Amino acid sequence: MTTSTTTPVLRTDYQKAVAEYWNRERNPVNLRLGEVDGLYHHHYGIGDYDPRVLETPGEARADAIIEEMHRLETAQADFLLDHLGDITPHDRLLDGGSGRGGTSVMAHARFGCEVDGVTISEAQVDFANDQAVRRGIDDKVRFHFSNMLDSGFDAESMRGIWTNETTMYVDLFELFAEFARLLPHGGRYVCITGCSNDVTGGRSKAVSRIDEHYTCNIHPRSHYFKALAANNLVPINVVDLTSATIPYWELRAKSSVATGIEDPFLTAYRDGSFHYLLIAADKV
Amino acid sequence: MTTSTTTPVLRTDYQKAVAEYWNRERNPVNLRLGEVDGLYHHHYGIGDYDPRVLETPGEARADAIIEEMHRLETAQADFLLDHLGDITPHDRLLDGGSGRGGTSVMAHARFGCEVDGVTISEAQVDFANDQAVRRGIDDKVRFHFSNMLDSGFDAESMRGIWTNETTMYVDLFELFAEFARLLPHGGRYVCITGCSNDVTGGRSKAVSRIDEHYTCNIHPRSHYFKALAANNLVPINVVDLTSATIPYWELRAKSSVATGIEDPFLTAYRDGSFHYLLIAADKV
Amino acid sequence: MTTSTTTPVLRTDYQKAVAEYWNRERNPVNLRLGEVDGLYHHHYGIGDYDPRVLETPGEARADAIIEEMHRLETAQADFLLDHLGDITPHDRLLDGGSGRGGTSVMAHARFGCEVDGVTISEAQVDFANDQAVRRGIDDKVRFHFSNMLDSGFDAESMRGIWTNETTMYVDLFELFAEFARLLPHGGRYVCITGCSNDVTGGRSKAVSRIDEHYTCNIHPRSHYFKALAANNLVPINVVDLTSATIPYWELRAKSSVATGIEDPFLTAYRDGSFHYLLIAADKV
Amino acid sequence: MTTSTTTPVLRTDYQKAVAEYWNRERNPVNLRLGEVDGLYHHHYGIGDYDPRVLETPGEARADAIIEEMHRLETAQADFLLDHLGDITPHDRLLDGGSGRGGTSVMAHARFGCEVDGVTISEAQVDFANDQAVRRGIDDKVRFHFSNMLDSGFDAESMRGIWTNETTMYVDLFELFAEFARLLPHGGRYVCITGCSNDVTGGRSKAVSRIDEHYTCNIHPRSHYFKALAANNLVPINVVDLTSATIPYWELRAKSSVATGIEDPFLTAYRDGSFHYLLIAADKV
Amino acid sequence: MTTSTTTPVLRTDYQKAVAEYWNRERNPVNLRLGEVDGLYHHHYGIGDYDPRVLETPGEARADAIIEEMHRLETAQADFLLDHLGDITPHDRLLDGGSGRGGTSVMAHARFGCEVDGVTISEAQVDFANDQAVRRGIDDKVRFHFSNMLDSGFDAESMRGIWTNETTMYVDLFELFAEFARLLPHGGRYVCITGCSNDVTGGRSKAVSRIDEHYTCNIHPRSHYFKALAANNLVPINVVDLTSATIPYWELRAKSSVATGIEDPFLTAYRDGSFHYLLIAADKV
Amino acid sequence: MTTSTTTPVLRTDYQKAVAEYWNRERNPVNLRLGEVDGLYHHHYGIGDYDPRVLETPGEARADAIIEEMHRLETAQADFLLDHLGDITPHDRLLDGGSGRGGTSVMAHARFGCEVDGVTISEAQVDFANDQAVRRGIDDKVRFHFSNMLDSGFDAESMRGIWTNETTMYVDLFELFAEFARLLPHGGRYVCITGCSNDVTGGRSKAVSRIDEHYTCNIHPRSHYFKALAANNLVPINVVDLTSATIPYWELRAKSSVATGIEDPFLTAYRDGSFHYLLIAADKV
Repeated sequence: MTTSTTTPVLRTDYQKAVAEYWNRERNPVNLRLGEVDGLYHHHYGIGDYDPRVLETPGEARADAIIEEMHRLETAQADFLLDHLGDITPHDRLLDGGSGRGGTSVMAHARFGCEVDGVTISEAQVDFANDQAVRRGIDDKVRFHFSNMLDSGFDAESMRGIWTNETTMYVDLFELFAEFARLLPHGGRYVCITGCSNDVTGGRSKAVSRIDEHYTCNIHPRSHYFKALAANNLVPINVVDLTSATIPYWELRAKSSVATGIEDPFLTAYRDGSFHYLLIAADKV
Repeated sequence: MTTSTTTPVLRTDYQKAVAEYWNRERNPVNLRLGEVDGLYHHHYGIGDYDPRVLETPGEARADAIIEEMHRLETAQADFLLDHLGDITPHDRLLDGGSGRGGTSVMAHARFGCEVDGVTISEAQVDFANDQAVRRGIDDKVRFHFSNMLDSGFDAESMRGIWTNETTMYVDLFELFAEFARLLPHGGRYVCITGCSNDVTGGRSKAVSRIDEHYTCNIHPRSHYFKALAANNLVPINVVDLTSATIPYWELRAKSSVATGIEDPFLTAYRDGSFHYLLIAADKV
Repeated sequence: MTTSTTTPVLRTDYQKAVAEYWNRERNPVNLRLGEVDGLYHHHYGIGDYDPRVLETPGEARADAIIEEMHRLETAQADFLLDHLGDITPHDRLLDGGSGRGGTSVMAHARFGCEVDGVTISEAQVDFANDQAVRRGIDDKVRFHFSNMLDSGFDAESMRGIWTNETTMYVDLFELFAEFARLLPHGGRYVCITGCSNDVTGGRSKAVSRIDEHYTCNIHPRSHYFKALAANNLVPINVVDLTSATIPYWELRAKSSVATGIEDPFLTAYRDGSFHYLLIAADKV
Repeated sequence: MTTSTTTPVLRTDYQKAVAEYWNRERNPVNLRLGEVDGLYHHHYGIGDYDPRVLETPGEARADAIIEEMHRLETAQADFLLDHLGDITPHDRLLDGGSGRGGTSVMAHARFGCEVDGVTISEAQVDFANDQAVRRGIDDKVRFHFSNMLDSGFDAESMRGIWTNETTMYVDLFELFAEFARLLPHGGRYVCITGCSNDVTGGRSKAVSRIDEHYTCNIHPRSHYFKALAANNLVPINVVDLTSATIPYWELRAKSSVATGIEDPFLTAYRDGSFHYLLIAADKV
Repeated sequence: MTTSTTTPVLRTDYQKAVAEYWNRERNPVNLRLGEVDGLYHHHYGIGDYDPRVLETPGEARADAIIEEMHRLETAQADFLLDHLGDITPHDRLLDGGSGRGGTSVMAHARFGCEVDGVTISEAQVDFANDQAVRRGIDDKVRFHFSNMLDSGFDAESMRGIWTNETTMYVDLFELFAEFARLLPHGGRYVCITGCSNDVTGGRSKAVSRIDEHYTCNIHPRSHYFKALAANNLVPINVVDLTSATIPYWELRAKSSVATGIEDPFLTAYRDGSFHYLLIAADKV
Repeated sequence: MTTSTTTPVLRTDYQKAVAEYWNRERNPVNLRLGEVDGLYHHHYGIGDYDPRVLETPGEARADAIIEEMHRLETAQADFLLDHLGDITPHDRLLDGGSGRGGTSVMAHARFGCEVDGVTISEAQVDFANDQAVRRGIDDKVRFHFSNMLDSGFDAESMRGIWTNETTMYVDLFELFAEFARLLPHGGRYVCITGCSNDVTGGRSKAVSRIDEHYTCNIHPRSHYFKALAANNLVPINVVDLTSATIPYWELRAKSSVATGIEDPFLTAYRDGSFHYLLIAADKV
């Protein structure tokens, strides 16, 4: 519970490998889309895409697709923020695994409150803080080189916490224990994540392929609810977004920024071995 | 796990009191509404009511309100059935706490499959079986004098199970253990229930008032998710229906069949100490 | 485990409602009895009453009954203190939910040691501290506006702890975790409480009626022993006081200070759905 | 859970050693006392002894002491039976570790009901059944060569169960799981046992000396309450009989049938490392 | 616990995919090595290889390497059997995930006892039973189309059980619960498996690559010990075979039957993210 | 979790009795052997003894035996240290129950790192620190009057921890919780201990005899693995040293420093009711 002051942010070879991946990552699917309006996301989208973008003639087609994908990603982040409950400008929020900062910026814009983002990638911290400075919100929106399993923030200091596709890098029981510490009674946690489906059984080939690609460890759906239950986090809304995210992946597969991981995602979503889920839960 | 063949259906004074209540119950709010179209519900409704019913002139007004309340109750049962997943005519379903049988009849009409309802009220069993005979579906829809905690059905014999506002009479851990036994891997459980809100803290006066009225034991929301997690039942959808049920209660408060419990319900929903929740979960 | 310094004493709407109830409470059954000898109790009595008080002629009858009720309440507190074990003047005791301070005053009188009482009612804190000043024991007996779930006292600082009919306002697992923190190895905890009876099954109407009256959440007997077992508190004595407290309620029902809650208590005790229990347990 | 029909009664070297000990045992402290009135106990006594027996002149002194010890042992069995609750002639009771059958015979005499005793000593089974025949109660009181951890009786077949100083031979979690299976909802379990005291810490030398003497494994007090809590057995009475049993041991130490184990018992009781406890608990 | 008689062997899409993989598998690395002496293994080897096989001239080189690999695989199976304890011809053993039957045949040859192998691949069942017939041991060595999670054998019917690199296809808690049911008190379970290393953290890319290749779900080392502890299986020997298996993989990488998975194995073993472990545990 | 600064090292009568035993202990089997080369052990030996020492003529025989016993004890400590993994001079190690310091001195000699030993015997602390001064290593090797259950060292401050036959004095769950606190992720714990064998069943007479002799509480083998699993300590090696330690006891039984406890040890090891075990586990 108590940790010595010298505990490093990166404690395992695994964490170092993950950090290195994201420090080096310059993936157009993240950078090109972010350039659309300066919101840099590291997550996927939801909602139907406008099929006309595929008909865009000539060189503009690639950009049209990218803008549409970006729109779907922003819609996903908006949907996540919709579930944070009533947040006032005097509250404080935590973005667990904040990437290049897109969702944090959107949260501040919507609620006017302080937002702290943590990530184990120093490159992402720098990038995101730079974005905050450019937007003139660095007094309210801050990014930290910090492990969300051991964030160092005061107990009960965060009115709301979210993780946007970052829980596959950590142990859920450890993570939710830390979040339960950070949230006051009545605080809200919102999670969007891909999870394997216990109904179809063990991890399918497609899910293992995704794990290998991102050096991540996708959890079964059941683990989320066991870990929440063990940490006094009580669901109030659970939404299966699987069918809502498939169009995004179909569009991405046709885009210029496809990375090759589109096929395993589509296979896994379609064969039922993988779900895209939103969970909103209250700390009690 | 094994129980002797002589285990009585009613094992405790509490169960006997509950059974006696429902054996004697002749509440117009249940009977009058059931007479509308022969679907006898023992649950509440969701959705906005048509405000024009309140304007219905003269003696027709009371009936108009009752028809509208009945429509909202049927809408609730439909919403529940929407979450059972793909059910074929060859499947079998269990209605845990089947009351006068309304939801079972609707389930059979929708899916064409066998439905078994269980209730500890012999009067309800007789009433519901009589309804099935009248509808000519008694070869497929059967009601049993049986305790849903110890139903006696074969393991893995039910493709789906629902409880429509009946879980407040039993221990959730015992109930979900039995349901987990009855469902095969991948089977679906759907629950609609009122639950107290751990966020506001202990049971409010209004919730205790409801408990006293129905001799029931409303559970905190957290208990549902702990008991599901402990019994390999994994949520796939959770919907907070609180705001959707308030109009029903407002209408009921103005109806000729109000029982006096409307005020505690409205108080509890409005002060946040009580939620109306749908949970759909898969057995894994 | 760690809480920020700004954690409020009253954390939930429920706690606020309970605090407000007791801040406003001016119930003659507590005040009139306390005036007998200056010991203000907020608990019930044990032992047979002297039937002659009922025969007291004229206006003196009401006072005679009140004096007799007060005698039984004091007997209850004495019985509780009997189970604290060997307490020396150098020890320190905690009164969890100290009300207007009666039991604390008695404990100091008996053992000569320091006593700290905590309650979430500021009115009670003021009243009780005022009593301590009047008695000249305010250097030894102190009352605090504090939540017994999070008392703020040092670990292992209390030789003994008691709760006299206050555990129905809190979660037992949280409470006993805090008490286990406050007691050293070998420290003693004594609890007198009403509890519902798992043998008769769920909460009876009468118990829900009591819950509503006091905005409290009466626990099943089984919860006490599960929560003790989970927190290294090992029973050494358990006494079923149900039959010993019934005379008190019968007398109270006939008194001038009856509040109307007497009937649910008598019903619940007599139908077996409610027990009055003393538990003494050692911290190990 | 399911055991093959060939599971032997004695499954471990330990159980075989215990069985062999009791098969061979011809200890005068058990046989001589039993001859007093034909009630053969294998447990200790409670209550003050009559000091005049020590003054009995000449050869009669030894017998006087033995009769007095027997009286205290019978008083202990009576105290145990007092806690079984309301037992009717139509009920059935289980004596777990029935020895030569004394307590079973007393239970039948008091309640008129059927009693089954189980023990892993075939010599004890034969002896006790022979006693039942002599008393003409063998149609109601039966002793079985059977392990109380796996008794083979039907689920919920026993209204009450007791163990009189036999729990130190078995794992409490296994034992109480079996008892919870045998008892119906509301059934009563009564245990009298010596237990080590978690307050003084680990097993003292004296307690280990007793363990060695009887090849038994005395449990800490805390284990009893953890194992009860884990098996839905809820205490209703707990009585510390330590001071009540010391006189018995003091008398026994002066008797002609002392075995040498008296000193460790007295040491352990007096230094606080050992308790003599009655626990009555309800199955819920 | 109880399952209906119609429970299929293959219950999930995942199990069907695994069964299909092994039904179709005709991998030379398994078939060619088996042809050496008729022992068909589906596991890896331990011990240093003879470097001279690499120097074998001409066409004989490939066969020499294959013979050497087969020798190392047989050595592994022998090492496994060494840890089964004292097995007599009257005992019965279970091979959980028996593949083409090699280890079962070796166990029978060593102990002379009955061996039952189970696998969810019908092709493997047929192949292995055919081998038993050829060897004239089909009265003692039998292979079954059966799921080791729900084997259908009688409780306590198996003196020993082993799994040779098959636990990565199943949930360990379910598996060890079934094994604990099949073993009598004192029965022995031996497991050889690859497991991910909790010390290096989450699953590395190399481990996910192996998972994808075999459609398996490699468990962390910690899961083995948690699942054993939860099921009364107590380790008596644990051997880290990682360094002992690396030579086998180095040789295989140079062989004609390399499948391409050699590199992820060698990477994972060398970077410490993967261990090759033997665990021997007693049922208690 | 938090303890007040005044928590005494010796908290229970049991701990005081153990401390007193070791404060007074001047057993030749420890002192005489230590004098051989200044390494004072309080544990037993492993490996075959040289039978020629028994043939040593005249007065030299006793010393020859003692030297040989000392060699076997040193071999045991070396075997323990072999399992600590890669320790550098910059690491820090904890010796839990350090006795007169022998293993700590050996660890420092091997790894060059800091070693802290803790023991609840002040006499042992003084003796061991005096040894460190004599060897000029007191800047690196320090002994503390401290309870290993509550050592007071910083979290994650120890690269490795061992206990050499000291775990039988404490609760394993408490101990391993403290060790899990002291070890960083990836830290190593090594335990050598005698443990009773769950396979043979309850504690045998011989094991109770050992408990009585040393006022210790020998744990079953299963408890070690349950307590490790509960505290994120994952075995990597488990070695059954029983047969390796029997020669030591046979030799000791023939030595001049035999204490009488040799026979129970040999009986217990030979009848299988007692094991001598090494466990190496990683903190994860």
